[in-house]
Amino acid sequence: MRISELSTVCGVPVATVKYYLREGLLPAGRLTSATQAQYDTTHVARLNLIRALAGAGGLSVAAIRDVLAGIDQPPESVAEVLGTAHRALGTPLGTPEKGPEARPHPSVMPLLEKLGWWIDGLDQQALDDASAALYALDAADFPISENELIAYGRSMEAMAQTEIAGIPNGSREEAVRYVVLGTILIEPLILALRRLAHDDAAIRRFGPG
Amino acid sequence: MRISELSTVCGVPVATVKYYLREGLLPAGRLTSATQAQYDTTHVARLNLIRALAGAGGLSVAAIRDVLAGIDQPPESVAEVLGTAHRALGTPLGTPEKGPEARPHPSVMPLLEKLGWWIDGLDQQALDDASAALYALDAADFPISENELIAYGRSMEAMAQTEIAGIPNGSREEAVRYVVLGTILIEPLILALRRLAHDDAAIRRFGPG
Repeated sequence: MRISELSTVCGVPVATVKYYLREGLLPAGRLTSATQAQYDTTHVARLNLIRALAGAGGLSVAAIRDVLAGIDQPPESVAEVLGTAHRALGTPLGTPEKGPEARPHPSVMPLLEKLGWWIDGLDQQALDDASAALYALDAADFPISENELIAYGRSMEAMAQTEIAGIPNGSREEAVRYVVLGTILIEPLILALRRLAHDDAAIRRFGPG
Repeated sequence: MRISELSTVCGVPVATVKYYLREGLLPAGRLTSATQAQYDTTHVARLNLIRALAGAGGLSVAAIRDVLAGIDQPPESVAEVLGTAHRALGTPLGTPEKGPEARPHPSVMPLLEKLGWWIDGLDQQALDDASAALYALDAADFPISENELIAYGRSMEAMAQTEIAGIPNGSREEAVRYVVLGTILIEPLILALRRLAHDDAAIRRFGPG
């Protein structure tokens, strides 16, 4: 198909398709003349993926490039794959704070021990993010009990175990694709569901309106 | 205390404190001369709160102003308070898509009905965000089953019920503060915990390294 058809099929403006081609996110088509190229179903699939990552995933072009590289040339270990996905998402916590916040928050390690999580292989960035979030709660004078922390951890653990159990056993490419997309695209879904669940719980406690 | 002391106590540079004063996030001190003002513990508390929202909360100055206004002049209903917090956080889903994505995703209403959530009072923005996230999963050819969706919903529901149950019964100001800060500051915490839980689950399934 020509670029105009590719644009129509995927619902992406031609100018945006050309931008992705220039940025190397989308592989070049097969040249049929000096000024025309043909695209196939692999381009459709890749363009849909870029659109999902850029749109609902909210990823920058640079982050999309990293993710696609991770899918095309899968890293050796699952930890590396998760690292790629986490880096692409960026920290959800704004700029890391300097000063005392550079140290792990004193609640982090006791929490991980209580949860019984495997401490050695955990992502340093995610550990730092958890510390920053806890320091922010302290700074805002918003106390959170150990039991509440454990409850949050257990909820996330239940989700993560289901998600990791769902990783296909087949090709490594397929497993990598599953992990990266699952991490990136499901995060917005669970945040939206958390907000809806808040509304529902508030209505149940305080009544509608 | 003088501005330099306020800066030291809160660990915020004097230039940043002056910026927050100019932007009206921090109320002016009590003038003791033409060029000097005194600040008190209410300034310390407010500055710590701003720092938490700007740092780990990742909020813009405009979003912080909205949140502080919501805390200082609490809206009438809990739904409005939740709305303030959700708007301050912004959509976690990037720019909303046009075209077919403007319609609710066909899985959203059946999911809410299965979950038994109170549909009338739910935040429209959160509903749109959930639809956008589901369309992105479709576009990326990442199927998610109804059972998986329900499991995500139930996890969020359990968290939200605990959080809403924890809202203090006392003054409305205190309840508003709890809801707004809980929504904004705990979101980064649960995302960090989700990433750590992924690492833990991956190590358990695939072994370390």
